[in-house]
Amino acid sequence: MAPHDGKSVMEEFMASETEKRPISTIVIIIAMQTEALPLVNKFQLSEDPNPTFPKGVPWVRYHGIYKDLNINIIWLGNDSVFGVNSVGTVSASLVTYASIQVLKPDLIINAGTAGGFKAKGACIGDVFLASDIAFHDRRIPIPVFDLYGVGLQQAFSTPNLLKELSLKVGKLSTGDSLDMSPEDEASIIANDATIKDMEGAAIAYVVDLLEVPAIFIKAVTDIVDGDKPTVVEFRQNLAAVTAELDQAVTQVVDFINGKSLSEL
Amino acid sequence: MAPHDGKSVMEEFMASETEKRPISTIVIIIAMQTEALPLVNKFQLSEDPNPTFPKGVPWVRYHGIYKDLNINIIWLGNDSVFGVNSVGTVSASLVTYASIQVLKPDLIINAGTAGGFKAKGACIGDVFLASDIAFHDRRIPIPVFDLYGVGLQQAFSTPNLLKELSLKVGKLSTGDSLDMSPEDEASIIANDATIKDMEGAAIAYVVDLLEVPAIFIKAVTDIVDGDKPTVVEFRQNLAAVTAELDQAVTQVVDFINGKSLSEL
Repeated sequence: MAPHDGKSVMEEFMASETEKRPISTIVIIIAMQTEALPLVNKFQLSEDPNPTFPKGVPWVRYHGIYKDLNINIIWLGNDSVFGVNSVGTVSASLVTYASIQVLKPDLIINAGTAGGFKAKGACIGDVFLASDIAFHDRRIPIPVFDLYGVGLQQAFSTPNLLKELSLKVGKLSTGDSLDMSPEDEASIIANDATIKDMEGAAIAYVVDLLEVPAIFIKAVTDIVDGDKPTVVEFRQNLAAVTAELDQAVTQVVDFINGKSLSEL
Repeated sequence: MAPHDGKSVMEEFMASETEKRPISTIVIIIAMQTEALPLVNKFQLSEDPNPTFPKGVPWVRYHGIYKDLNINIIWLGNDSVFGVNSVGTVSASLVTYASIQVLKPDLIINAGTAGGFKAKGACIGDVFLASDIAFHDRRIPIPVFDLYGVGLQQAFSTPNLLKELSLKVGKLSTGDSLDMSPEDEASIIANDATIKDMEGAAIAYVVDLLEVPAIFIKAVTDIVDGDKPTVVEFRQNLAAVTAELDQAVTQVVDFINGKSLSEL
């Protein structure tokens, strides 16, 4: 989220002023209901009775005031045809775009579970703050298009938050499949990723376009380069790891409360 | 685009009235500038001097009146970091969502080039109208999630248009890679697809959510199951095939002019 070229002096000034005032509105984007509901309860949020988003979309907004923060948890919702959580990059990018348009957040947090690579030091239950985010399933073997496909982005820098909380730091790689093909694996290795999810890079793309700072908190449910099948391990650990995730998100929100972006 | 359950009688009535009045506003979503500009010239459209979309997004709107139609061509634009066309599902889904919110089109046309499968009867330069659209790179091997990942949608039915124009009909499969991995190939075969692109299914997902009819016109630049590498063939044929595509889109627009949705 480095400043873009071509900004006017006034825009730079406004941006630096925004960085100095306390953070007020945050949007927490969560793909799965299992991940979202404990946090909704923790922050005592309630579901928006008025439609925040256009008719037809499945996205659910929970909001409320927690300490000095206006907190919005946006869950991607259940697909209207299949009834399962609307996971993946298309859904996540749309929610991020719509949330920024409607809620104008100071900060976006993408929280969720992820696969981890033990070869890069990830263990079940670890909670990571992503430093870099990229795609691993957008192979466009034409010069420059290849880099666009990877779409490398950096998360908003939060050195003080990292010093305070015991979160691991790692690179996140995103793709629309829960499994990992050999081609995905090669791209994940090229991305130097420690964790793998299904939404992060899409959210990072949208917040970069619209210049909203974002951080990515990911808890490891399964070891991708381990012995157990991803689906089995994911299901086995989802509940316990979600508790770790929710604790970490609460700590992050408590740390954010009362601080400006430049103090994170 | 079948009617969703839970519609009120009034909503059904309004929808049927919309189907009866002449189509007024159309949005044509095009990924690549090479594909868009000949049509912009053909319909004598001009670039919108006022920003249609939020600051920061690369999407470019060309609009104007052609015969009795208010035509908008939305090109996905150049990525601000890499300078290449913003191809792919994330970009396409965002543009579709934003265009529907701002322009409230009666009909969306997604026009573009595609790879074709000779085993399914596709030849270079063929122009297809897609009957069904699905994803081939969203593998989620959990029951029901697997179907959500495939995300099968049907295009708006246009029997009269098909009778009038000499377009082929085939199923379209979408993924974010220009190449095709063995896993992609298996999914494309399962999707029974004749053509392969990088945007269609994402656009189909959004128009289904927001209940806007959409059709998909795809011209074949390269034979995926042929001898030549996709990238070489794609580049070799892009200009010539774009001319075929533009001719077909013009024929479709001329056919649409003065007709209602139910007459297509």
